Amino acid sequence: MSKRVAVVLAGCGVYDGSEIYESVITLLRLDQQDAQVQCFAPNIDQMHVINHATGEETGETRNVLQEAARLARGEIKDLAEANANDFDALIVPGGFGAAKNLSDFAVKGAELTVNEQFVAFAQAFKAAGKPVGLVCIAPVMSAAIFGEGVKCTIGQDAETAAAVNATGAQHQDCVVEDIVIDEANKLVTTPAYMLASRISETAAGINKLVDQVLAFA
Amino acid sequence: MSKRVAVVLAGCGVYDGSEIYESVITLLRLDQQDAQVQCFAPNIDQMHVINHATGEETGETRNVLQEAARLARGEIKDLAEANANDFDALIVPGGFGAAKNLSDFAVKGAELTVNEQFVAFAQAFKAAGKPVGLVCIAPVMSAAIFGEGVKCTIGQDAETAAAVNATGAQHQDCVVEDIVIDEANKLVTTPAYMLASRISETAAGINKLVDQVLAFA
Repeated sequence: MSKRVAVVLAGCGVYDGSEIYESVITLLRLDQQDAQVQCFAPNIDQMHVINHATGEETGETRNVLQEAARLARGEIKDLAEANANDFDALIVPGGFGAAKNLSDFAVKGAELTVNEQFVAFAQAFKAAGKPVGLVCIAPVMSAAIFGEGVKCTIGQDAETAAAVNATGAQHQDCVVEDIVIDEANKLVTTPAYMLASRISETAAGINKLVDQVLAFA
Repeated sequence: MSKRVAVVLAGCGVYDGSEIYESVITLLRLDQQDAQVQCFAPNIDQMHVINHATGEETGETRNVLQEAARLARGEIKDLAEANANDFDALIVPGGFGAAKNLSDFAVKGAELTVNEQFVAFAQAFKAAGKPVGLVCIAPVMSAAIFGEGVKCTIGQDAETAAAVNATGAQHQDCVVEDIVIDEANKLVTTPAYMLASRISETAAGINKLVDQVLAFA
């Protein structure tokens, strides 16, 4: 039986959505391991739109689900329709979308709030003892999903690690090619572009994360 | 010495820009093979913008270079600045951007015209005996770059293959995991999402294309 994996996206592009390389590498590895994948995204406006050539805000309004659909070749569903009973595992790529659209960590740091649809969906995996993989900056939502003491990594950035600890999670430093596993919670995290200087480094860590999530599933 | 490869993008998303999976798989393989990569895109408006969740036009205006910058994490240059002397090879991923923004094949079929900056850049590789890789639908531009009789593939779609032949190129059927090589022109093509039903199939063909392009370089 192939494992059924939900991938939650948050737009399309590192500065205002899901990090594209992390998302595609996740989907590629899942397919290479014969998992069945369904992508979801919340049907909400992005926090803002960034011109990725200049780094500046454009003033446009874009919808997270519509932009995330680019990353899924149209094969995506509204997160409102997602049911954890239909899946064996959940993976969330990084990019600022995780900190701007799925949560407001980019603005509020350790005082973040997490999108209610997303946190309810993710907590249903926890409640069912099903594994969750969070990539890059997405692990800042670990405590909101799993509660105090959950082990995770965002790499080695001291300020972000301190913010993660302030949320109640327990940060562990990690190199880009590796993962941190919270066995009790079946939570797997990897730094990816929090540390990566090239795409092949990101792939090494994400491939390991996907394999561990599938091993738990 | 690592090979220097120019990758020309045409937006970000299969229906109005560069196909994201093809682009990322190309960039990943190039990095895994230690190539130095520079992405370029033309600084022009997209033909149109498609809501990838519904397939409908949105009526928005988006710039090809700005949207392609999402695929390059901001590390992209205006195609107007590109000089083939700085590179050992050129690769162009597919997606409708190749047929809507780099050319107008999506509208005009065999009567297509190709973006002047792009065709000049690509022809400079041909003139210097440097290899070119065209993925998915991008090979419809083969004759515009290389002239009559150039061998290429867009997979196995009879109507598109007939249009390719009508441009003066010589189409060869090809399966998704394979490539077609025109040895004299050092042109390498692969069907990718012209045929692929899953991302791992696309990766198999593109990895082969990248390796062959680098072998020619």
